[in-house]
Amino acid sequence: MSIALIIPDRKLDDLQQRLQQALPETRIEIWPELEDPAEVEFAVVWKQPPGCLNGLVNLKAIQCFGAGVDSILADPTLPELPISRIVDPALTDAMVGYLDGIVSYYRLQLDVFSRQQQQSVWRPKSPRKLNHITVLGLGELGGAVADHFCQAGYQVSGWARSGKSLKNIQSFAGAEQLHHAVAAADVVICLLPLTSVTENLLNQAFFQALKPGAIFINVARGAIVDETALLAALDHGPLVAACLDVFRQEPLPSASPLWQHPALLITPHVSAVTNVSTVVSQIADNYRRAQQGSSLLNPVDLVRGY
Amino acid sequence: MSIALIIPDRKLDDLQQRLQQALPETRIEIWPELEDPAEVEFAVVWKQPPGCLNGLVNLKAIQCFGAGVDSILADPTLPELPISRIVDPALTDAMVGYLDGIVSYYRLQLDVFSRQQQQSVWRPKSPRKLNHITVLGLGELGGAVADHFCQAGYQVSGWARSGKSLKNIQSFAGAEQLHHAVAAADVVICLLPLTSVTENLLNQAFFQALKPGAIFINVARGAIVDETALLAALDHGPLVAACLDVFRQEPLPSASPLWQHPALLITPHVSAVTNVSTVVSQIADNYRRAQQGSSLLNPVDLVRGY
Ligand SMILES: NC(=O)c1ccc[n+]([C@@H]2O[C@H](COP(=O)([O-])OP(=O)(O)OC[C@H]3O[C@@H](n4cnc5c(N)ncnc54)[C@H](OP(=O)(O)O)[C@@H]3O)[C@@H](O)[C@H]2O)c1
Ligand SMILES: NC(=O)c1ccc[n+]([C@@H]2O[C@H](COP(=O)([O-])OP(=O)(O)OC[C@H]3O[C@@H](n4cnc5c(N)ncnc54)[C@H](OP(=O)(O)O)[C@@H]3O)[C@@H](O)[C@H]2O)c1
Repeated sequence: MSIALIIPDRKLDDLQQRLQQALPETRIEIWPELEDPAEVEFAVVWKQPPGCLNGLVNLKAIQCFGAGVDSILADPTLPELPISRIVDPALTDAMVGYLDGIVSYYRLQLDVFSRQQQQSVWRPKSPRKLNHITVLGLGELGGAVADHFCQAGYQVSGWARSGKSLKNIQSFAGAEQLHHAVAAADVVICLLPLTSVTENLLNQAFFQALKPGAIFINVARGAIVDETALLAALDHGPLVAACLDVFRQEPLPSASPLWQHPALLITPHVSAVTNVSTVVSQIADNYRRAQQGSSLLNPVDLVRGY
Repeated sequence: MSIALIIPDRKLDDLQQRLQQALPETRIEIWPELEDPAEVEFAVVWKQPPGCLNGLVNLKAIQCFGAGVDSILADPTLPELPISRIVDPALTDAMVGYLDGIVSYYRLQLDVFSRQQQQSVWRPKSPRKLNHITVLGLGELGGAVADHFCQAGYQVSGWARSGKSLKNIQSFAGAEQLHHAVAAADVVICLLPLTSVTENLLNQAFFQALKPGAIFINVARGAIVDETALLAALDHGPLVAACLDVFRQEPLPSASPLWQHPALLITPHVSAVTNVSTVVSQIADNYRRAQQGSSLLNPVDLVRGY
């Protein structure tokens, strides 16, 4: 019996060691070096090469190593097994802290002042009046983000699949309310999962529904956004600026036109990175649950795709 | 009897109107168009041309239109009169908000990611661990800033002329403790007034006393910092970055080497700008006090120079 860590391109010593400490009786193996694939009963997975889970004939459950499962579900040969994902207060705090800093960056006009600095231009400006923030997605992350900005004094609205009743947060739900949800926003934050429904959801019609001067921040997944529509909205309005932490292809190819767009701030998928030390216990828990045949913590609904 | 507004290079209609509303019986004049200089009993002043107050033979008091009085005291022909300065919760909030945003900017490595973006380089990095903040100057602004970061979970120390006992803030005092005060700081924020004692106080010896990797933020006055020493500390350590909102000469001349230094963030003196609507009532109050011969609100100690 063993656990396989299937997380290509990442140093896994730390995760392996900590998981070994939490589960001293269990072998923790790093894919693709598996002693016997038939021994693997539990897999911790992130962006696995398609097909690689099929050889694990005794696999009981899949633990996604992040909050979003889109890259796992993208595998057309994925075995039909329970999948769980990471829900972690430390991850949520990181996301809230990132977005708080990015909103301050725009409030203080640091985008404008950076461009002026490049041209040795001194032109004072008052802070931007950013009063209204709309959060797309009100799950673990979006809900906490909406709450944070609400407590910081912003007017906050949110949009999800299902309607919510959240204190002091105006709630919108369903495809037909998307444009309505963002109409008054000075800042729109995307925290939707990438699914067949949300892919390219933020298209030309979406950006044209925004208020002139709005700012768009994507910290969810790149493929939710139609890049051409985003660039058009930056070039011809209504967007005045955008911050992207996630991209359709990562690393963002050096030839991408996004890199050098003057109204874009680009960060390399750093807004909320899974923290090995804080998630080990929930992974160990889920392993034990899979062993006992009980339901996983933070399960993914395979029909909804998130 | 009149009040003269002596604030060159600024549109004063709003201030004039609001002050007129607060003091309907009093003439509010905009220098240099004064009906009769001998009628002026109170002056609201910011960066006055040296000598211009001397013709106001019946002047009773001077109201500085900002928090720092250095530019007023720099006039060698300044009449010996009571001077008051602005102390305003809105100004303090603006300063706290600016510094909170700047510290987040560095915490999130936005300086590094901006440089990487210019070169189309994707290189993720964890947030900077900024744990310890030292605030130089613990007056109206420095005290509030220290308190804010303390409440946000930072370890905070502060330095002033006199010792303080502030909750959870380590206090240092006097010239001999300056280097000690900053030795452990990840971020040093300057909120000292510019006086004969603080001019060029932050010199080579000061910067060499900082921790390797420290970040320096100046929101006080440019002349407190020895620019050559600052640039040397950025080029050869220990500083890793600096943010400057204030400069010896403002606007910063386009030929200044500061503009194009890759480790500098430059904002054009915007961190906390006097807000006409929130300060009118204290100016009107001080006018009435001057008329009655009673002591001014927020008086400046002319011997200390702040
Ligand atoms: N950049 C990063 O470093 C980073 C880090 C972590 C996560 N992420 C991304 O953030 C995403 C959100 O994470 P989470 O933990 O908050 O997810 P979550 O708890 O599953 O919440 C997802 C939210 O999106 C809503 N939603 C899903 N499909 C929708 C649709 N078609 N129309 C309208 N709303 C829809 C859901 O509505 P209901 O509430 O009605 O179900 C829910 O409110 C992840 O999927 C991941 O891609 C990025
Ligand atoms: N960038 C902007 O937009 C902006 C806006 C507003 C103000 N400012 C600047 O910020 C400065 C501070 O404002 P404030 O209202 O906080 O001033 P303040 O209330 O007068 O406080 C000044 C602080 O500096 C300390 N100090 C003065 N001389 C010192 C010395 N030689 N050694 C050590 N400490 C010394 C004082 O110590 P004690 O407490 O012992 O007296 C006090 O704690 C202003 O003077 C102005 O130049 C800039």
